Amino acid sequence: MKVDGQPYRTIWLSADGKSVSVIDQTLLPHLFKTVEWRTVEDVVAGIRNMVVRGAPLIGAAAGYGIALAMAVDPSDKAFERAYEILFASRPTAVNLRWALDRMRSVLLPLGPNRRAEAAFATAKIIADEDVENCSAIGEHGKGLIQQAWENAQRSRPVNVLTHCNAGWLATVDWGTALAPIYKAFDAGIPVHVWVDETRPRNQGASLTAWELGHHGVPHTVIVDNAGGHLMQHGQVDLCIVGSDRTTAGGDVCNKIGTYLKALAAHDNRVPFYVALPVSTIDWTIDDGVKSIPIETRAPEEVTVISGLSGDGKIGSVRLTPEGSPAMNYAFDVTPRRFVTGLVTEFGVFPPLPEEMAKLRQEAALGTGSHPPSHDR
Amino acid sequence: MKVDGQPYRTIWLSADGKSVSVIDQTLLPHLFKTVEWRTVEDVVAGIRNMVVRGAPLIGAAAGYGIALAMAVDPSDKAFERAYEILFASRPTAVNLRWALDRMRSVLLPLGPNRRAEAAFATAKIIADEDVENCSAIGEHGKGLIQQAWENAQRSRPVNVLTHCNAGWLATVDWGTALAPIYKAFDAGIPVHVWVDETRPRNQGASLTAWELGHHGVPHTVIVDNAGGHLMQHGQVDLCIVGSDRTTAGGDVCNKIGTYLKALAAHDNRVPFYVALPVSTIDWTIDDGVKSIPIETRAPEEVTVISGLSGDGKIGSVRLTPEGSPAMNYAFDVTPRRFVTGLVTEFGVFPPLPEEMAKLRQEAALGTGSHPPSHDR
Repeated sequence: MKVDGQPYRTIWLSADGKSVSVIDQTLLPHLFKTVEWRTVEDVVAGIRNMVVRGAPLIGAAAGYGIALAMAVDPSDKAFERAYEILFASRPTAVNLRWALDRMRSVLLPLGPNRRAEAAFATAKIIADEDVENCSAIGEHGKGLIQQAWENAQRSRPVNVLTHCNAGWLATVDWGTALAPIYKAFDAGIPVHVWVDETRPRNQGASLTAWELGHHGVPHTVIVDNAGGHLMQHGQVDLCIVGSDRTTAGGDVCNKIGTYLKALAAHDNRVPFYVALPVSTIDWTIDDGVKSIPIETRAPEEVTVISGLSGDGKIGSVRLTPEGSPAMNYAFDVTPRRFVTGLVTEFGVFPPLPEEMAKLRQEAALGTGSHPPSHDR
Repeated sequence: MKVDGQPYRTIWLSADGKSVSVIDQTLLPHLFKTVEWRTVEDVVAGIRNMVVRGAPLIGAAAGYGIALAMAVDPSDKAFERAYEILFASRPTAVNLRWALDRMRSVLLPLGPNRRAEAAFATAKIIADEDVENCSAIGEHGKGLIQQAWENAQRSRPVNVLTHCNAGWLATVDWGTALAPIYKAFDAGIPVHVWVDETRPRNQGASLTAWELGHHGVPHTVIVDNAGGHLMQHGQVDLCIVGSDRTTAGGDVCNKIGTYLKALAAHDNRVPFYVALPVSTIDWTIDDGVKSIPIETRAPEEVTVISGLSGDGKIGSVRLTPEGSPAMNYAFDVTPRRFVTGLVTEFGVFPPLPEEMAKLRQEAALGTGSHPPSHDR
């Protein structure tokens, strides 16, 4: 999508063909800077320090990390070392392993002298496939926004509420939850986005607001507390959020607070959609509330917050009194009964048994190259 | 309640009998400082700058403001001037006008030489009545916590979730939503409080956490997004929140985000109580969602946040990208169908027509001296 009018992806091969460029997401939304990775060690550090984040993007980065390693030393030993250090960079990133295994299956059968070229090509395929999936999600979701516009007799912009950042910054391009919004906007459908700030890490207030602003999409940042009030007063036509992990039955594990928005949508008859590549569906579990363990993260993410100081630097302040403990649950589960539909690269599927079966079948008939993507 | 082991109110006559002391709430939770008001102008500035906040406390402060004015000049003219400047200090504070009118009705019939003494006495009565009301709310609410403890076979602490700050800092002592918690704690019932941070002004993370911590009540700060997840997993026995304004039918207008917690409580069969003096009930309106206008405040409360910097000073950082607009709704309305009971100084009343009629009757038979208290 666009940054200052210029199209960008989150990761790309530099013009020299020997290094990889990424947007440094640790500085957003206050500073836009790209970084060049020249070695696999650069990639490892970048993933570890969250210069890049988002499951699909981490997968693509890992592919390029292998390629940078192969350019220096295409031996089996060098491959295994690169695999190990990349895999250790974000141990819970399921996508990372998927991308690394895919690189292995392509490269190891080849002679060392052909590996570097094949590695760069495969990394590009991984990235391009992600763009394709997200674009397809966007096209299917665009129809929902178009429909809301028609329902409003094309008399006003469509108001979409989103939570967290499931935008192009979390993927290679387009995003998941934001892809339908970009597609609608690019097609001339007037759309306005309510952006939940998404405490504690504020991915909405920082990344989603930044993305939308740079692409020119009208949006308004609100605190996570505000969405219910907006829905009570007809200010939200539909919600679209992403998913970290989805069960076979259609329960959705996503950023903490998603469930509260789904409850409000249900109480006010606002459609609640979840955009996801089918790779995030875990077909082995059904009941998300019972079966999905919820990660707790450092309490400091709740008690201390960072942003732009008056002196133009990134600074942080403590919000809570000394001695007050905090708990930091990263995700929650939205039961399927509050989900209107899953927006996937294969179309929009209500989380009903027969529809989920159909989706599973279509996914099985697909390319089979989709990564599982369980982390942000 | 206690600060560093010592009992405090939020406002009291200083030892010299000529000035009024308050806790400077603008510095909490990071610094505890008391301030002495010597003149009515000090009180006006203190209310305007939110050194004191919370409807009942503002009412008590206004009473003392009149007393300080009368000590200098007990003339009618001086009274009217003090009334005017105090009333203008927080124009939307309904309590302020109520307290000022009460002071007028007591003082003007008296000869000027008796006014100063009567003014200090009446200001003290206003403060003491507020303490009595809050204490009664606490006693009635304590029964609910006791019951939850019995339901758990006294095997573990009772988990209460609260939103915003409806504690003793918003009143003269005890608070409304927190009064039952203090009463239960003081009675030896083990209780643990989940404290919603309450964006955007973070009254939970700052004031509620500070209050509870200083009184020794176990508590944990969470982001506003987390409560639904906790309720899904049996981690909340009951919710207790305050109310800014309550309708005759029992709809509750309170800090933005209250509605989302009520939805989650309902979905998980967690009792949801609202603690309030009957003075916050507006008997002239029924449907809160339709009839209560919701104040919007400065967007900077969303986009900029303050706290304790590394250098030990209060500092602030910007959270959003430049150019991203924000909207800041201060309150929302929780429809009565999500409210288990109103905890008042007259007892606990479910928001059902016959119960509300009973409450109205009991309130009418009461002292009649309760202020309307619509602001925070």
